[in-house]
Amino acid sequence: MKTLIKNIEIITMDDENRHYPEGAILYEDDTIVYAGPSSGLDSRLIKAEPGKLKIMDGRGMLALPGFVNAHTHIAMTAFRGYADNMPLWEWLSQRIWPMEERLEQGDAYWLSLLGAAEMISSGVTTFSDMYMFMTDTAQAVSDCGMRAVLSRGLTGPDEHMEQRYREVDELAEWQRKAEGRIRMMIGPHSVYTCAPEVLITSRQLAEKYGVGIHVHLSETAGEVEECIGKYGKTPVRHLHDLGLFELPVTAAHCVHLTQDDMELMAGWNVKAVHCPSSNMKLASGFAPVDDMLRHGITLSLGTDGAASNNNLSILKEMSVAALIAKGYTGNAEALPAVKAVEMATRMGAEALNLQDEIGSLEPGKKADIQLIDLSGPHYHPREDPLVHLVYSGYSGDINTVVINGQVVMQDRVLTTIDLERVYKEVDRIIKRIRY
Amino acid sequence: MKTLIKNIEIITMDDENRHYPEGAILYEDDTIVYAGPSSGLDSRLIKAEPGKLKIMDGRGMLALPGFVNAHTHIAMTAFRGYADNMPLWEWLSQRIWPMEERLEQGDAYWLSLLGAAEMISSGVTTFSDMYMFMTDTAQAVSDCGMRAVLSRGLTGPDEHMEQRYREVDELAEWQRKAEGRIRMMIGPHSVYTCAPEVLITSRQLAEKYGVGIHVHLSETAGEVEECIGKYGKTPVRHLHDLGLFELPVTAAHCVHLTQDDMELMAGWNVKAVHCPSSNMKLASGFAPVDDMLRHGITLSLGTDGAASNNNLSILKEMSVAALIAKGYTGNAEALPAVKAVEMATRMGAEALNLQDEIGSLEPGKKADIQLIDLSGPHYHPREDPLVHLVYSGYSGDINTVVINGQVVMQDRVLTTIDLERVYKEVDRIIKRIRY
Repeated sequence: MKTLIKNIEIITMDDENRHYPEGAILYEDDTIVYAGPSSGLDSRLIKAEPGKLKIMDGRGMLALPGFVNAHTHIAMTAFRGYADNMPLWEWLSQRIWPMEERLEQGDAYWLSLLGAAEMISSGVTTFSDMYMFMTDTAQAVSDCGMRAVLSRGLTGPDEHMEQRYREVDELAEWQRKAEGRIRMMIGPHSVYTCAPEVLITSRQLAEKYGVGIHVHLSETAGEVEECIGKYGKTPVRHLHDLGLFELPVTAAHCVHLTQDDMELMAGWNVKAVHCPSSNMKLASGFAPVDDMLRHGITLSLGTDGAASNNNLSILKEMSVAALIAKGYTGNAEALPAVKAVEMATRMGAEALNLQDEIGSLEPGKKADIQLIDLSGPHYHPREDPLVHLVYSGYSGDINTVVINGQVVMQDRVLTTIDLERVYKEVDRIIKRIRY
Repeated sequence: MKTLIKNIEIITMDDENRHYPEGAILYEDDTIVYAGPSSGLDSRLIKAEPGKLKIMDGRGMLALPGFVNAHTHIAMTAFRGYADNMPLWEWLSQRIWPMEERLEQGDAYWLSLLGAAEMISSGVTTFSDMYMFMTDTAQAVSDCGMRAVLSRGLTGPDEHMEQRYREVDELAEWQRKAEGRIRMMIGPHSVYTCAPEVLITSRQLAEKYGVGIHVHLSETAGEVEECIGKYGKTPVRHLHDLGLFELPVTAAHCVHLTQDDMELMAGWNVKAVHCPSSNMKLASGFAPVDDMLRHGITLSLGTDGAASNNNLSILKEMSVAALIAKGYTGNAEALPAVKAVEMATRMGAEALNLQDEIGSLEPGKKADIQLIDLSGPHYHPREDPLVHLVYSGYSGDINTVVINGQVVMQDRVLTTIDLERVYKEVDRIIKRIRY
């Protein structure tokens, strides 16, 4: 099956951010065949048997690769807006953890679908998750058509270690299902919740499965302080010394970094996930984005979970990131809009080690495409569409989303998720777990 | 003519932020007659002659008072996204000013309609503006149905003073037109663009017309430094000493304030307009919002002009304000969501001295109402709707907007502005003025 999107403005987000005001995209099954100027599309390419060519008209819209949400906890949609404005410790210990203990097998399926619906609606086509009940989330990903990199969160050691490691093995099986849309990473939660032996086992698991590592790193000043007190070094140096950087590492937050940390990360190609809304909402601080970029660190964007953001829109993170980078550094030229979009697309793909498959609109890449409606007054007068998108755009502008060649949202209507059913099931779960 | 909005969730944003999950709103002509629980609506109130009662079904939506954008330069939509990522001085002197000089009488009418379309689409019903060509903007306000407080920007002295003061007199005439939707303030631009004599004349004009003063105040560290160098005091103290605080003063930005400044502002009831996106985008800094609130200063929200934001959505400013207040202070309890909504509604009305007319949904107030669609996944599970709105909502969720009893947007379709015509006229203007 071939699909042609005609009359479409394209910014490819490839290495040169190529811009085709009058473009066409052709994809066959799950793969892009052409993305370029309409005038350059060889008519032989769109030859197809009757009924095997679908045509979409993209007039008035901008095509971008789908956004990558490089760090979230999708099932935490359960806790969106619950007990806001509470100090972190009280919030965690008195609200979130007691509720999490009441979660049962199967719950995360519906909670993940709720998060998937929100992400698709805001142009996110791929997310990287760390949480529990990961096979529930894998089933939801399989059913809704999204692409995901899933990590079973590891903490300890405690009496549940064997169970957790068994769940990693189960999750690994999912890499052979869902048309290849699911990948796995090993997810040691952090240096403050994982003893060195768990971090070392995580490294071994990553080696065994040939996958990367997904970890929370230097999120709060307290974490760094505690790590220095305990191990005599920063969390970054600690992970390095335990050999974790020999594997591909994706590190969420990276708010409190020393120059030495950044050099180490750049040298070992540790990829950072910037989560500005979460870092501000939990008062963790401002990540040194500009400084990380100067060090050559690959920087992507994440929403974190809906319990601490409270939304899953990468478009919103782009905007917030571009604004606070300027406010924080006092330099109006810090983090230009185009760089924020790169973080949400090409660099996001790199963060998940998926750069050969997604992150740009190029022949051979997977057909993960979003069409953004530029007809609203906030996109006028016409200027660089990426500037308008970052500073003026909102999630409701995302009109159509294609993942792996499947249309999962058309004209703002989700095609793979029954929202009313999801709301009903989520309400049922919430009623059971709420304190 | 009476209009009944039934089956509507209401948060009144009155002094107690009353919340009616199952409410009804009745307004007659331009005024609210009832806003409360459905069960409390006296059936005699909705009695009307045939054809004189319109009924709207608000199911699935939340009614709030329309947002107040307390500081903008609406005609600067012309410069949205133009020459981003340039140092401020180069941007102003080489791009913006030369283009502004090419603006002609009549241009601001279309540029204002573009901004009005964007504001209505994002739930803004009232804005406070400072710019040139104010009678053009007044005409646009009159035609599109919005409510506005308009200030002719004053600078100098220079050879154009007489013309500027004449324009103030012309603008004053508009207060008798457009069903009372237009008010005036006197707009001395700032302490760094107005010599003391212009500030004093501004005070006299405000006295003459019985209106308030709208001024940029302590926006950048450079402004404060220069003022201290020139007059030996901060901009706040400088305005105070010139007697301006004897009139109602609305001060935009207020980023760089001393404790003495804040005490002075609180004591004289100088109202501040927080413009977080603009302050970050231009790298001006973070306003001490938490500190201002602690001092008891009335704090509202503004987008600033589209040349420096680049959008006109107060919903977005609410979100940004609530996030950065926490990031900046390191206190996760700073500026709770509900306070951000108060700044966008009730306190916004106070900032414009319109608290007797707008800012809350109460009998006797003007029917300036927005209906927000809560059906999206980002509003689930159901929790405090204001928390969801601030942290998860986006402008596309605004479904219907009523101003002064007139429906100006229904189901996302503008009823008073011909967008295609506006785009055409704006394109024509842009083509003429662009460098």
